[in-house]
Amino acid sequence: MRDNNDMPGHLARRFQQIAVAIFHAEVEAAGYDLTPVQYAALAALQQNPGIDQATLAGLIAYDRTTITGVIDRLVQKRLLVRMASARDRRANVLEMTDYGHATLEGVVPAVEAAQKVMLRGLTAEETTQFLELFRKAISAVNDLSRAPLKTAARDA
Amino acid sequence: MRDNNDMPGHLARRFQQIAVAIFHAEVEAAGYDLTPVQYAALAALQQNPGIDQATLAGLIAYDRTTITGVIDRLVQKRLLVRMASARDRRANVLEMTDYGHATLEGVVPAVEAAQKVMLRGLTAEETTQFLELFRKAISAVNDLSRAPLKTAARDA
Repeated sequence: MRDNNDMPGHLARRFQQIAVAIFHAEVEAAGYDLTPVQYAALAALQQNPGIDQATLAGLIAYDRTTITGVIDRLVQKRLLVRMASARDRRANVLEMTDYGHATLEGVVPAVEAAQKVMLRGLTAEETTQFLELFRKAISAVNDLSRAPLKTAARDA
Repeated sequence: MRDNNDMPGHLARRFQQIAVAIFHAEVEAAGYDLTPVQYAALAALQQNPGIDQATLAGLIAYDRTTITGVIDRLVQKRLLVRMASARDRRANVLEMTDYGHATLEGVVPAVEAAQKVMLRGLTAEETTQFLELFRKAISAVNDLSRAPLKTAARDA
């Protein structure tokens, strides 16, 4: 049996674990309190204003049942609000607050810095190659995830 | 701002998420009930028999405080036992049971199959390249993790 630490599954867990630690370090150093998933939710909302919770879950490839907790914390932090949909009274749409927009804008440099730290071991050419292969590998197995990534579907 | 879904941090979360789903699907289909971390712990123990919990945590890059829960579940499943160390009575060393060895041996084909599924989108050449870049990227940031990977230190 080969070394377990060389398996793709181990490398995936390892890289994700370090990526999260780096994200927190950079974001906290910049004076913000935001997890990677909270950041992803805000960024997706800014690009797709007025979507509902289920649509947001698909956009950031997050489980429909666990996205509720993420939204709850963003609401508690006053970064977004749930509002009744104009089209469907039973549905809530998500709207970022002004504070949410300001926070997202303010935190972006730290998030970008974190991305650079994550790949500091690779040259520019290797980084391009690595990210290309990463995307290719992921897109071939997207349907095997319990929370597949979906494109924006604002009428869903 | 570039698309958040293209960032290394997002790709890391996404790949890890799918890798775990694939691991569970393959392992369950083979009739086993084992999480990726439980598997990693068993595999590391087989290669390093008689180590203690803190050493095991380092070997699989797992947090010292959360490794206890992993060990508890493996003990509940009768895959391993905690035994008093011959050298130090206050310390417990971990020993796999016969059932643990048989389970590990039995589950390996499913784990190997899962690794192949994870990278099914890449050619053989791309796989080699991807894993090489993955290892290189990780080794450059290992020290930034809250639970750095350590080599075996049986006397720790």
